[in-house]
Amino acid sequence: MKRIGVVLSGCGYLDGAEIRESVLTLLAIDRAGAEAIAMAPDIDQTHVVNHLTQEEMPEKRNVLVESARIARGDIQDLKTVSASDLDALILPGGFGAAKNLSDFATKGADCKIQPDLERLLRDVYKLNKPIGSICIAPAVIAKMAEEAGDEVTLTIGEDEDTASVLIKMGVNHVKTTVDEVVIDHEKKLVSTSAYMLPDRLSKIERGISRLVDAVVEMT
Amino acid sequence: MKRIGVVLSGCGYLDGAEIRESVLTLLAIDRAGAEAIAMAPDIDQTHVVNHLTQEEMPEKRNVLVESARIARGDIQDLKTVSASDLDALILPGGFGAAKNLSDFATKGADCKIQPDLERLLRDVYKLNKPIGSICIAPAVIAKMAEEAGDEVTLTIGEDEDTASVLIKMGVNHVKTTVDEVVIDHEKKLVSTSAYMLPDRLSKIERGISRLVDAVVEMT
Repeated sequence: MKRIGVVLSGCGYLDGAEIRESVLTLLAIDRAGAEAIAMAPDIDQTHVVNHLTQEEMPEKRNVLVESARIARGDIQDLKTVSASDLDALILPGGFGAAKNLSDFATKGADCKIQPDLERLLRDVYKLNKPIGSICIAPAVIAKMAEEAGDEVTLTIGEDEDTASVLIKMGVNHVKTTVDEVVIDHEKKLVSTSAYMLPDRLSKIERGISRLVDAVVEMT
Repeated sequence: MKRIGVVLSGCGYLDGAEIRESVLTLLAIDRAGAEAIAMAPDIDQTHVVNHLTQEEMPEKRNVLVESARIARGDIQDLKTVSASDLDALILPGGFGAAKNLSDFATKGADCKIQPDLERLLRDVYKLNKPIGSICIAPAVIAKMAEEAGDEVTLTIGEDEDTASVLIKMGVNHVKTTVDEVVIDHEKKLVSTSAYMLPDRLSKIERGISRLVDAVVEMT
């Protein structure tokens, strides 16, 4: 059975992983007959946001512990995972990708990737295993590719401002609608916009399902 | 467009709503061409559980605020919702249904339903609008029916111990596998076991999708 790593970044789109994107990724992996290996870094969230009021809350939460809610406890500390354990890797979105897995939300093109993830991404990419990224997570893949000195093709949807930052990192950006995917066949990178373009959940599902199928097919 | 209420009970299966069941309920409602109206009671969670270690954490969280993570902020305080606002109501599972929406987890057949939900359930049931319940949530519907003096047909899967408590509350219990639903046509009650029988996510999805289709069809 193919083993597809899924990198979670908390539990909630404003301060962690986008919950629906994460669940639909797990669903599509199961439907494709593959096994999902959930993982997250064992670090504090950058902050905690009240999803009712969108205001910051004065508390601390841990990315691995909160991600375990989506994973129903079946999750590994990202730093214990090796590229050789996986056939492919997928990063769902949510602000967690831009706040916990990287500091893209505040630093833009000058962002850094969280060290445990940076190591795993570099190794998976070096082995030319497929990497899928959803929503804002292609920004992390853009930084990974820039550090490798590669021009890669990705999508972040239709948002011109965010796309311009990816282009600054050397990305060949392709505009897409919510249920489309962009595939860089040479580098084995697949991306889809999902909630970068808020739409009906069934359309979000279609984009994610297509992404997972493309990733699994390329393994 | 038909309006289907979805009662959330937090965000995480050990102390709130089962995340996957909740998301798959929202997905199936959208696919059925209906509108999901997410709601939750504005109360403290009974407790907070670390989903990595399964141990209780020394902190407080609010059911409405945490449910807003799944609902992406688009959620109403349950006490502001009237039965006339809805064409049907669905309760996803997770321990939140048995700890926050009721005290079934500790009181069993002697449980009480959270007052805001008890009022809404009673009104929806009186209007003979369909009610769907998933996983452990049929326990709440069992209590509602007992209070109305009705014998209703429900499923909680295959768990004999939990089924016996429902039977004690006057339920005609039907054993099911994970992707089956039980329909009480007269009372317009639909139930499915979902994570009461942990299985592949694609099978969980099938049961929930069938439940939602049956509920929407009966509106």
